[in-house]
Amino acid sequence: MCELLGMSANVPTDICFSFTGLMRRGGDTGPHRDGWGIAFYEGRACRAFHDPAPSATSPIADLIHRYPIRSEVVISHIRQATHGRVSLENTHPFVRERWGRALCFAHNGKLKGARALPLGRARPLGDTDSERAFCWLLARAEERWGERAPSVPALARALEGWLRALAARGTCNVLLSDSRALYAFCTTSLWYLTRRAPFSEASLLDADLRVDFREETTPSDVVTILATRPLTEGEPWVPLAPRVVYVFERGERLRP
Amino acid sequence: MCELLGMSANVPTDICFSFTGLMRRGGDTGPHRDGWGIAFYEGRACRAFHDPAPSATSPIADLIHRYPIRSEVVISHIRQATHGRVSLENTHPFVRERWGRALCFAHNGKLKGARALPLGRARPLGDTDSERAFCWLLARAEERWGERAPSVPALARALEGWLRALAARGTCNVLLSDSRALYAFCTTSLWYLTRRAPFSEASLLDADLRVDFREETTPSDVVTILATRPLTEGEPWVPLAPRVVYVFERGERLRP
Repeated sequence: MCELLGMSANVPTDICFSFTGLMRRGGDTGPHRDGWGIAFYEGRACRAFHDPAPSATSPIADLIHRYPIRSEVVISHIRQATHGRVSLENTHPFVRERWGRALCFAHNGKLKGARALPLGRARPLGDTDSERAFCWLLARAEERWGERAPSVPALARALEGWLRALAARGTCNVLLSDSRALYAFCTTSLWYLTRRAPFSEASLLDADLRVDFREETTPSDVVTILATRPLTEGEPWVPLAPRVVYVFERGERLRP
Repeated sequence: MCELLGMSANVPTDICFSFTGLMRRGGDTGPHRDGWGIAFYEGRACRAFHDPAPSATSPIADLIHRYPIRSEVVISHIRQATHGRVSLENTHPFVRERWGRALCFAHNGKLKGARALPLGRARPLGDTDSERAFCWLLARAEERWGERAPSVPALARALEGWLRALAARGTCNVLLSDSRALYAFCTTSLWYLTRRAPFSEASLLDADLRVDFREETTPSDVVTILATRPLTEGEPWVPLAPRVVYVFERGERLRP
């Protein structure tokens, strides 16, 4: 199993605190030694960092954890290889341009028979079931909308059908963004937590680190974190209902 | 003007030394304060780092300069904005997937009327003439070959025609890779240097740094560096003939 981390915020926010918890699971408190990646949106583009090395000992992960890159949408993934070798090509999140926006996809789970999924223009660089599934989703989107970008609600509705079809092949916990919104879907485990005023303190479960969000935020900040498992103790994490596409925009849950 | 840096090598090689020279030109010894980016190929994928901040003071540039990421093909660019605002979307190199490979493109110069270039499936994320030109090249490639990847020589021949057409619009110094080869083309300034046994010492022009390649290499290593202007003194840099596509593979010049 892999671990997912996502963020949606109404102001550019750094994810150092949550990422510190996640990276500890990459070969330290967790078994996810087979690479990690993170994408930070800025406008329609994203800065993606990928490393096939374990996140717990990666100098690049160390940089991300110390250097506050502020973003309104973030997707991260640490990997325990179940399908496909350990390589840069197989390191999530996967990114493709569509409709003049960077689309970013990370998946946790194993999908049977993914090689049978028919492709369109987007081709996998590596050999994971996950990247193949992403390319298949892009082919479906291409068939449905061609060059015209769908609205966020239209994309969410369509994704729900397509991700349910993928879920028939196995475990399908997914984070996806088109730079406008963060879309989340799970079959087994994905949790979210929205932080807003009045802010309080939080402690990581995976590292001896405590943060007082009263010192880090302004009263109007709204920040939602998504993770495979809760990252902190003492905060009201909510499990996602399975097989439903959740949409977060500017920190707020818009769907369902 | 911007500055380009490229590398082709027959063994995974780090570019720390050359990158140190280049990043000094980003807001320190040079005027290129408007962001920088670098892509390191590993297999069919590349790790790209982009930062709209000046390279001379960027923590990410500092990481790249200290952490030896080894690769056989590297493309880097530091930017002085002449067209398009300073933003992540407008930061080279631009990357798109085609034929199951990451294609990476960096451009130095200004192209008049780039907005008139007709596009295919690939759409710009930002508003530079450079990214538009890259999308136009991808549209030409799509028309010519569809889903079937061309051979390296076929791509080089076609690129020469297309890049000459772009050069009719202005300055067109370009580095491009499809993970197999490094393609280079210039109208004004691009230089290359091939290092092979017997190796010697070199000193950067832009920083007080000297390296003895005898200590860093094995006798079979072949490494070609490309740059807008020579980065070192005392080494036999060769200017590229204008309007010709050069191809480097595994450190060796294959074309012309």
